Amino acid sequence: MAAQNLRTPGPTPLPPAVREALARDMINHRGPEFAALLRVCVDGLKWAYQVTQHDMVILTTSGTGGLESLVANTLSPGDRLLVASIGNFGERMGQLARAFGVDVTQLDFAPGTAVDPQLVEDAIREDPSIQTVFFTHNETSTGVLNPLQDLAAAVRVARPEALLLVDGISSVGSVSVEPEAWGLDVVVAGSQKGWMVPPGLAFVSISSRAWERQARASGPRFYFDWQRARKSAEQGETPWTPAISLFYALEAGLQLMREEGLDNIFARHRRLAQYTRDGLADLDVRLLADPRFASPTVTTAWLPEGVNGKALLRALDERYGIVLAGGQGNLSGKIFRVGHMGWMTEDELSAVLRAVQAELNSVRATTATARQ
Amino acid sequence: MAAQNLRTPGPTPLPPAVREALARDMINHRGPEFAALLRVCVDGLKWAYQVTQHDMVILTTSGTGGLESLVANTLSPGDRLLVASIGNFGERMGQLARAFGVDVTQLDFAPGTAVDPQLVEDAIREDPSIQTVFFTHNETSTGVLNPLQDLAAAVRVARPEALLLVDGISSVGSVSVEPEAWGLDVVVAGSQKGWMVPPGLAFVSISSRAWERQARASGPRFYFDWQRARKSAEQGETPWTPAISLFYALEAGLQLMREEGLDNIFARHRRLAQYTRDGLADLDVRLLADPRFASPTVTTAWLPEGVNGKALLRALDERYGIVLAGGQGNLSGKIFRVGHMGWMTEDELSAVLRAVQAELNSVRATTATARQ
Repeated sequence: MAAQNLRTPGPTPLPPAVREALARDMINHRGPEFAALLRVCVDGLKWAYQVTQHDMVILTTSGTGGLESLVANTLSPGDRLLVASIGNFGERMGQLARAFGVDVTQLDFAPGTAVDPQLVEDAIREDPSIQTVFFTHNETSTGVLNPLQDLAAAVRVARPEALLLVDGISSVGSVSVEPEAWGLDVVVAGSQKGWMVPPGLAFVSISSRAWERQARASGPRFYFDWQRARKSAEQGETPWTPAISLFYALEAGLQLMREEGLDNIFARHRRLAQYTRDGLADLDVRLLADPRFASPTVTTAWLPEGVNGKALLRALDERYGIVLAGGQGNLSGKIFRVGHMGWMTEDELSAVLRAVQAELNSVRATTATARQ
Repeated sequence: MAAQNLRTPGPTPLPPAVREALARDMINHRGPEFAALLRVCVDGLKWAYQVTQHDMVILTTSGTGGLESLVANTLSPGDRLLVASIGNFGERMGQLARAFGVDVTQLDFAPGTAVDPQLVEDAIREDPSIQTVFFTHNETSTGVLNPLQDLAAAVRVARPEALLLVDGISSVGSVSVEPEAWGLDVVVAGSQKGWMVPPGLAFVSISSRAWERQARASGPRFYFDWQRARKSAEQGETPWTPAISLFYALEAGLQLMREEGLDNIFARHRRLAQYTRDGLADLDVRLLADPRFASPTVTTAWLPEGVNGKALLRALDERYGIVLAGGQGNLSGKIFRVGHMGWMTEDELSAVLRAVQAELNSVRATTATARQ
C-alpha cells in the first residue's frame, strides 16, 4: 500500500515516534506497567484539556462511542435536550440522543454559519424543561468553529444550572478549550485528530455537576459507564481490556505535544488554517465557512462550477498522493475539505494548494476549450 | 519498559509481522484502501469462524463492548434471557443484560465445572418464556471449555426456535467453533486472544435468525448497531471511524493464521494445553478445571497451600520476566492462570513451567525450614 499524504480532517498522519510506540509488544493490562501508562495519559490529557478539577476518562471506542457515553451517562429517557446543530455531527448527536429515548429540541443553522448565542438563550428561556444543552465545538463537516465560550455564557445566563455537553472531537488538543473556566460540564475528544494518534480512543472530561447528573441518569449503560471507568482508574486499570497499542501511541503523541507547548500548538493551527484559506482564496475558490468562525483544524471550500468533486479528489490522490475529503450529507458533491490538524506544517499544505491549483487549472482549460 | 514474557489469557504476544503492521501510517477510512482492508479482514474472520452464510461485523471496542452489542441488538427490556454461568465472564454477562432491563435467569455452575446440557434443557422446558440463551464458550476465569455443540443441541431440543448467543472471546480462532453447523446465532470474539492482535476490536457473527430478532429488538442502540455496520460494510466502510491500526494488525494476524492452517492452529492449542497441564501436574500443583473440559487456551491451577499468589506472580515477573494472571472474583488469591493462545509454542511454556517449579520449590524449602 503506497504512503498517503493524508490531509483529511482525521485520521491524521502519525509522527515516527508514535509509529514506533504502536509497534511495541503487549503488556498485562492488569499490571503496574499499564497503571503507569494510564496515569501518564490521563495527566497529559488533563494538561491539553486545561483542567485540574474535572475528571478525565479514556474509553476504547471511536468518537461516536464517546458521544454515546455522554448520552448514556447524563440523560434519561424522556429528558429534554437542546441540540444546536451546524452540520453533520450536530445532526448525528440528535439522532444518537433520540435513539436513547431523549426528547431532542434541535436548533439548525445553515452550513458554514456558527450557532448564534442569542438564539440559544431565547430557546432555553422559552422552554423551562431544557436542563441539558449540547454543542459541537468544531463542526468537521462544514469547517466552522463555534464561539464556545460565548455559547456557554448564553446558556449560563438563561439557565445557570443546566448541564452543558460538548463535542470537542476535532477541537480539543488543537484549539484552546477551557472546560473549567468556561463552564463546560462534559467535553468529548477523539484520538485520531490533533493528538497524532490512530482512531480508537475517546476522551471525556467530566465536571462534578456531570457526576451528580450521572448518579441520577436512568438510561441503560455498561461498557460506557463513566463511574466504572473512574473506579477502575483508581486501581490503575480500565474496567474492560483497553486498546493498549493506542495508549502507547497516546503517550508518545502527548510527549510531542508537551515538547511543542500548548500555546505554540494552538498558534500553529490558527496559522495553518489562515495559510490554507489564503491559498485557496488565491485560486478563486469560494470558502464555505463564515470567516469570523472559520475552523483552525479543517478548511472547507465550494467546488467551483463545472468541477466534479469525486474526479478532483481522485486526481489529487492518483497524481500527487494527496488525500482530501469530500462533503458529507447535504454537502456531498458540493464541497471539498482540507484537514490541517496534528502533525502538519505549511510545507505539506503548500503541496496541497499547488496540486489543487494544477487540477483546477486543468479543468478550467478543458471547460474553456469545450466552450470555444 | 522491559519486554514481558506475557503468558496471561490475553492480551497475547505480538508476532513481528503484526508489530510491523501496527507501525504503518494512517489512511483515509472513507477510501478504497480501507475498503480493501476491511474486505480482507471480514473474509479472514469468516474463514476462522468457519462460516459462509452468517454475516460478520467488526466493531471498534473491546470484548465487553462486543457483548454489549449482543444485548443491544437482540434483546428488548423485559425479555427473558437464560444465562448459563461457569465463572466471572458468565457473571458479567448477567450484569450487562440486567443493566439493559433484560429479565435474566442465571444458572450457576461451580468453578472448574462445565455447563450441564441436561440442566439447560430442563430449565428451558420449565419456562416457556425463555426465547434466548447465552453461553460463555471458554470461561477465561476458570479455564473451562464448555461442550458448546452439546449445549446448542440441548437448547434446540427444548426450544428449536430459541436465539442462541455465545461469548467466544477466548475460543474462536484458537478452538474449533462452527456457528452454522452447531446452530449458534451470534458468536462474539475479541482481537487480543488467539488472533495475535492487540485489544480494541470485537468480531460478531450473525445468523439470519439473529437479524430477524435484531429488526424487532426495541432497546436503545446507536454505536453498536449491527444494521448500521452491515449497511456501511456494503460501501467498504464502517459507520464510525475505525481503529485503523488494529485492522492492519488483524490483516497481518489472519495472514499468519492462514499460513499455519486452521486444523494445525486448533491442534497446536490442544497440544500446548496438554503440555501445560502435564507440566503443572508434575509439580504437584492441583488443576482447577474438570479434565474433561479443560480449556485449550488457558490453564488454571490452585495455589499450593502456603503460597501467596501475589508474591508468586511478582517473583515470576521480577526474576524471569514471566507474567501470569491471578484469579478473578471469588477465585482471587486462590488460583493462578497460564494463557497459551495465539503466538506461542512449547518453548515459551517450558520456561513458564521451569520458573514456576523453581519458585514453588523455594517456597516449599522455606516452609520446611520454618517447620523444623
